Amino acid sequence: MEMQGAIPENMLAVCLDAEGRLSARKVPVPHPGKGEVLIQMAAAPVNPSDLARIKHLDPSERSSFIGGIEGSGKVVAHGKGLMPGLWMGKRVACSSSHHNSGSWAEYMITAAMACIPLPNAIDDEQGSMLLVNPLTAVAFFDIIRQNKHKAVINTAAASSLGRFTEHLGKKNNIPLIHIVRNENQVKTLKDRGAEFVLNSASNEFENDLHSYVTQLGATLALDAVGGSMTRQLLSALPYGGHVIIYGNLSGENPETDHRSLVADNKQISGFYLVNWLKEKGMVTMIRSIVQARQLLKNEVTVPVQSRFPLEQAQEAVNTYLAKMSAGKVLLVPGFGLQ
Amino acid sequence: MEMQGAIPENMLAVCLDAEGRLSARKVPVPHPGKGEVLIQMAAAPVNPSDLARIKHLDPSERSSFIGGIEGSGKVVAHGKGLMPGLWMGKRVACSSSHHNSGSWAEYMITAAMACIPLPNAIDDEQGSMLLVNPLTAVAFFDIIRQNKHKAVINTAAASSLGRFTEHLGKKNNIPLIHIVRNENQVKTLKDRGAEFVLNSASNEFENDLHSYVTQLGATLALDAVGGSMTRQLLSALPYGGHVIIYGNLSGENPETDHRSLVADNKQISGFYLVNWLKEKGMVTMIRSIVQARQLLKNEVTVPVQSRFPLEQAQEAVNTYLAKMSAGKVLLVPGFGLQ
Repeated sequence: MEMQGAIPENMLAVCLDAEGRLSARKVPVPHPGKGEVLIQMAAAPVNPSDLARIKHLDPSERSSFIGGIEGSGKVVAHGKGLMPGLWMGKRVACSSSHHNSGSWAEYMITAAMACIPLPNAIDDEQGSMLLVNPLTAVAFFDIIRQNKHKAVINTAAASSLGRFTEHLGKKNNIPLIHIVRNENQVKTLKDRGAEFVLNSASNEFENDLHSYVTQLGATLALDAVGGSMTRQLLSALPYGGHVIIYGNLSGENPETDHRSLVADNKQISGFYLVNWLKEKGMVTMIRSIVQARQLLKNEVTVPVQSRFPLEQAQEAVNTYLAKMSAGKVLLVPGFGLQ
Repeated sequence: MEMQGAIPENMLAVCLDAEGRLSARKVPVPHPGKGEVLIQMAAAPVNPSDLARIKHLDPSERSSFIGGIEGSGKVVAHGKGLMPGLWMGKRVACSSSHHNSGSWAEYMITAAMACIPLPNAIDDEQGSMLLVNPLTAVAFFDIIRQNKHKAVINTAAASSLGRFTEHLGKKNNIPLIHIVRNENQVKTLKDRGAEFVLNSASNEFENDLHSYVTQLGATLALDAVGGSMTRQLLSALPYGGHVIIYGNLSGENPETDHRSLVADNKQISGFYLVNWLKEKGMVTMIRSIVQARQLLKNEVTVPVQSRFPLEQAQEAVNTYLAKMSAGKVLLVPGFGLQ
């Protein structure tokens, strides 16, 4: 292992306590293996995928769990390999590639492959959200293009990811039907120029959804909600329609209906960024990262609603859960404690 | 319309009464349009797809409904077109292509495309079951080959379709994990040489399913059951696994789980023979029909448990529902009434 400067023996990391609450604990700083780097973390967001991951954690994985699937920081040590050496000393956006090393910590080890060097124009905070949201939106539009979808339904459209998706929809001339959860969010989206916005709490929701789907010829739905929403989306789409599940905001397993699947040849599949990048290979990955970086640099800035130190990870998650659409919540080691 | 012999004005056909029960009614004999033939029906089976169709019927479709998706008979009149003329006077296996003309009737109109001329070696009864089951099994193995599945889970393995699937599994060297509902069926399948047979009512079912899936490398499940079975299949398959729903024996919508779909990149889709044939086009359709005909001629004979006249359609369905695995139930116009 090559390193730069002094690296302590131990670090603070967000783990799960016996009651399943997030709490910061002193643990050993991990050592990067072959192809890996050690990053001194600057910031890490709370993403819906983090919440899903915690919810679905195997009991056997609880004791070694460290939270956080993405973040930003500086590479301070590296294991063997060309790429790890190249990243040494650089500021990077990074996602977690180890089950038991996460970005909600003072240090994280991860595959050099899971890092992107950050240009000066992107600060630590925006850089910490580079991977999951913009790359996911880029991946969505890769899927949309590949499968020649002409119009798309997007749920949780008031989220940070929703903004990137909305932006790419406009850029690629793909009409989006935005589904949000209340009239305030309808107003926010309409104010920034979204045309087709539906409130899932409205009595007219299913009727309006069917009308828009027919009017625009939508054939794909991107579903971050699950539960009965999945069944409604499946039913609204025409013959051959496709629902892609990428989140679980309802906390319920996606519901289906037999007729849609069998008689109408519709399908349900899942999307998880790490899997998608793995399946797509290096060329698509690099192209997508370039596109995602463009999104952050020139096009969309993600609002941050608040910052918490690692010691207040549970409060950070609670704040985010209370109002996801107000912006991202970041974990910043040492924040407000100096 | 060209016709052969005298065709009556009216005929007996199995419709739905106000209480939703099947009952035979006098209705006008339909006239074949362009590309269509009129068939004097000899026999028609009760298939699980018939039951699913009745269950999911739109209220608006109830009054014009005539049951029966496949059967056999003789072409006695035809509309314009080359193919309809070619089939004139021939014995055919046929499937229903009209919503309001079905095979549970004295006469049916259907697309000439949906008919296959029957060689003498196949009698009316075996010919009446030519389309749905053997063609479905052939379609399954087309999907298995295309997607390079090495081993496959099959539910409702004691059914008539199950026998065709089992047979093609052996022929194509694709190990099948057969799921049945009781120990008698386990014995029946093992007696005829099936190796991997599981009873879904057993306490060990989920464990044994996981073991077989791992041992054989199964990546596809063919699901005729739905409900919680779908979730169990989804969960048993490895990363990237695929569940294809083709029936609804449980009467419940297929259940899913979020983790399988999102984290493990699994998918659910549906299979309906008519759609599959449409998507695949003429060449695959003809090749599949040739293969299906081979299956019936030389290889597998479907046992028939009983025959009913049209007047006893509801009894026929009840008999089938009471013991599906005892063999097919056929509707034969005039049976036992002479």
